[in-house]
Amino acid sequence: MKLMRVGQPGQEKPAILDATGKVRDLSQHVADISGAAISPEGLARIAALDLQNLPELQVDRIGACVAGTGKFICIGLNFSDHAAETGAAVPPEPVIFMKATSAICGPNDDVVIPRGSEKTDWEVELGVVIGKTAKYVSEAEAMEYVAGYCVSHDVSERGFQTERAGQWTKGKSCDTFGPIGPWLVTRDEIADPQNLGMWLKVNGETMQNGSSKTMVYGVAFVVSYLSQFMSLQPGDVISTGTPPGVGMGMKPPRYLKAGDVVELGIEGLGTQRQTFVADR
Amino acid sequence: MKLMRVGQPGQEKPAILDATGKVRDLSQHVADISGAAISPEGLARIAALDLQNLPELQVDRIGACVAGTGKFICIGLNFSDHAAETGAAVPPEPVIFMKATSAICGPNDDVVIPRGSEKTDWEVELGVVIGKTAKYVSEAEAMEYVAGYCVSHDVSERGFQTERAGQWTKGKSCDTFGPIGPWLVTRDEIADPQNLGMWLKVNGETMQNGSSKTMVYGVAFVVSYLSQFMSLQPGDVISTGTPPGVGMGMKPPRYLKAGDVVELGIEGLGTQRQTFVADR
Repeated sequence: MKLMRVGQPGQEKPAILDATGKVRDLSQHVADISGAAISPEGLARIAALDLQNLPELQVDRIGACVAGTGKFICIGLNFSDHAAETGAAVPPEPVIFMKATSAICGPNDDVVIPRGSEKTDWEVELGVVIGKTAKYVSEAEAMEYVAGYCVSHDVSERGFQTERAGQWTKGKSCDTFGPIGPWLVTRDEIADPQNLGMWLKVNGETMQNGSSKTMVYGVAFVVSYLSQFMSLQPGDVISTGTPPGVGMGMKPPRYLKAGDVVELGIEGLGTQRQTFVADR
Repeated sequence: MKLMRVGQPGQEKPAILDATGKVRDLSQHVADISGAAISPEGLARIAALDLQNLPELQVDRIGACVAGTGKFICIGLNFSDHAAETGAAVPPEPVIFMKATSAICGPNDDVVIPRGSEKTDWEVELGVVIGKTAKYVSEAEAMEYVAGYCVSHDVSERGFQTERAGQWTKGKSCDTFGPIGPWLVTRDEIADPQNLGMWLKVNGETMQNGSSKTMVYGVAFVVSYLSQFMSLQPGDVISTGTPPGVGMGMKPPRYLKAGDVVELGIEGLGTQRQTFVADR
């Protein structure tokens, strides 16, 4: 299933994309795409609905594909070729950092370049949405805790991230730096999360063109690993790292400026399109 | 005012400590100690209540002093003498990292030492609770966005934090690693947040005995600074760093084990007491 949230910010309705490409209103059946609605039982209830009977929604805006995200956890340097382009070694175990949940926005919303930014950069990433509380789960059972996947754009300010005194959070958490969606694609629709094409273009020019195949620590490992350090809860989003082709890795580096348009997508998970704008 | 949350986990009622030490039920007036209730207008409404008319609550457990925390932001190495004891330099601007909000718990709840931990450590910190959305605010106006203060225990696993591949989040986010409370003490009750005694004992022995006077980056500066990188929202908690005396800084280092009892407090903000227990 492709679950989504449609409407103006703060007023999104839960919805589902049907087989004919129509967006159907789920708000008579679930409060939001969050919490219990994305548990295995909740997803089974949605799967049992006859979509033909649900009202069609006009899409004025697509919101973030999941609500109530308590943690937005990122894995750093998780593609060997991306690590190489940034001059870093592949870490011996996953690098974890957090993006502020206040950075989350819709997949096609404008991204605001923060004041003082000179190094706003792009990163297409595979997002993993947790559907069930996970703590100390093994790699073998980890996938049972995954509700599904989404496109995640881990927008990053490299100066804030690496030149402003320790810890990456500072360059990862600006408002609108976390577009997720358009859909939460349920796990059953993705045969192999470690074999998905991933791409990103800036003003029509391809910058990233990789595959989740070259991910160092795969989805099941990452879910299990994280669950050793903290409980993962329904609605938590894990952004699993980016393939090569970020602006920071270019010679000379290339960064985003107001007016730039970034398009990105992952095989089976849909596409995003953002205009980058200056802060007012 | 001293606002608090009383009841079993997930069932806490909003409450207030009256002048005679009685705990009064606020649940007829606010849904929780969160969001609009801790805005300047919300706090003014609570201040106008006649507490004598509110039902008294029996305290079976004190919960975290604020609910709906979207971000739990910490400032690293923010006391010059603590930086020295860990062998680090005072950073040229604040170091920011995140604790998972799922780490938040009540001030007297058991703290669970996670599986595999050998270096669980203590840190008494001054917590700042945001009451109004803050973005690009100046240091001069920053305090208007602060609802109040609380004791924050930034429990830390030093091995996870520093020996397990990059970024401190990993050692800061374990479940129960974030006791906050007992009270959210409103800003008007604290004449000078930069002149508060802070102490922590392990099994009755004083380990930390400092003052917010030696904080490098003070509360107003930190709120202003953070708001340049991300919007701060009602219920967000900022833990502003710890004075000297942590286990990691001892020669040899000393860490917590199951059965240890930690007590801590800050002048005017109350005390916490936790028993450290092994994970089951």
